[in-house]
Amino acid sequence: MVENNDSLQQLLQQFAQISGARLLVHGGGRTATAMASQLGMESHMVNGRRVTDADMLKVVTMVYGGLVNKHIVAMLQAMGLPAIGLTGADADLIRAHRRPITHGVDYGFVGDVDRVNSYALHRLLQQGLVPVMAPLTHDGNGTMLNTNADTIASSLAVALTNFYDVELVYCFEKKGVLSRADDDNSVIPVITPDSFVQLQTDGVVAGGMIPKLQNAVNAVKQGVPQVRITSAKELLEQGTIIREKA
Amino acid sequence: MVENNDSLQQLLQQFAQISGARLLVHGGGRTATAMASQLGMESHMVNGRRVTDADMLKVVTMVYGGLVNKHIVAMLQAMGLPAIGLTGADADLIRAHRRPITHGVDYGFVGDVDRVNSYALHRLLQQGLVPVMAPLTHDGNGTMLNTNADTIASSLAVALTNFYDVELVYCFEKKGVLSRADDDNSVIPVITPDSFVQLQTDGVVAGGMIPKLQNAVNAVKQGVPQVRITSAKELLEQGTIIREKA
Repeated sequence: MVENNDSLQQLLQQFAQISGARLLVHGGGRTATAMASQLGMESHMVNGRRVTDADMLKVVTMVYGGLVNKHIVAMLQAMGLPAIGLTGADADLIRAHRRPITHGVDYGFVGDVDRVNSYALHRLLQQGLVPVMAPLTHDGNGTMLNTNADTIASSLAVALTNFYDVELVYCFEKKGVLSRADDDNSVIPVITPDSFVQLQTDGVVAGGMIPKLQNAVNAVKQGVPQVRITSAKELLEQGTIIREKA
Repeated sequence: MVENNDSLQQLLQQFAQISGARLLVHGGGRTATAMASQLGMESHMVNGRRVTDADMLKVVTMVYGGLVNKHIVAMLQAMGLPAIGLTGADADLIRAHRRPITHGVDYGFVGDVDRVNSYALHRLLQQGLVPVMAPLTHDGNGTMLNTNADTIASSLAVALTNFYDVELVYCFEKKGVLSRADDDNSVIPVITPDSFVQLQTDGVVAGGMIPKLQNAVNAVKQGVPQVRITSAKELLEQGTIIREKA
């Protein structure tokens, strides 16, 4: 979404209409890939995750934490929203550890979340600030780590249930989770942890939708009352709701 | 300073020893120049200021706001300091306007500071956070601007006099302002606005020291009780003090 300025503007305008405490988590993978390429570096993805060596860590730190993050912050400020751009290192918001080599894959400087400093985040929200989170964490020993944006969003949502009635919204190019891939209007209205298992067994959901739904289901299991998966163009439309009970 | 990891580490360790509310403003010009060069872009400087076209604005936004800023934040976190990396766009901390073409020079996306949101900064400091400011501002209409770090430091120092007994410290490679350029131990202990005029007339201070001292003198004239210019290696040593009266 963040790569197309018109779509981004549209998304942010809808985001600005949400009332109450809110925060935004962004990605930027395409911009990182383009920047890496301009610097003569190839991007390697395994299971949809970027292999992040030391040079690629610099690229994602500057693209996610600088270029994309500050672009969004400046745009939100222009809409009158008191945005504050952050990574997991800032205010020690998200600590992570470097993912160990798994099934022979070394993802490099990719971080798996250990804990969220929900109190620090709450205090920023209490000030009326609107956090804009880049998909970066840190290890507490001075090293930034690259962490998937969907995972960051669900980790923050879970942590904030200590303080708020949280709704987690994932937005993407479709109107929701589709029951027929070729029919954009076949949005499944509600998915529960149980029906998610069934949908996978039946092969209705597949590919990139599985990790997104897995994040959503995990968030619900950890206490987030409701997750929505909806279109970035129609953020306020219902889309697919993931919750404990149908 | 931020380009050499050992010097940076040393500087940050000293910074961590300062008690009370504090913040740090960093630069990153050499890193930006190197990154621009890797991207096939030439850097043009006029009077020590970087000419910032749209592409160079992207470079400085990602290098200052992302790469350098998050590196420093992660290092301070590793020292146990609750650092939070920010630009002038974040929390609307520093609004600026694009510098008009002056004497035929178009600096591009270079921002001259209009106002500091000292209250928002004060609230972050009250939370015990340690702001780490990148030399970037915004225009309030969605555009980031490139603003000199020394200017940002003096603007913040002046604004914070509303809330704090402020000391502004500029650090660089020398032990202070030297009365004899070839004698590193000829540090001038105190400079006042009046003696600054004299030192210029006498040709004692020249070159890059003049804008630094000008910023210092302006800060003093606007109510900052004391400015120090000292070595990044010996941050806690006195160096040269700039104040209203000798």
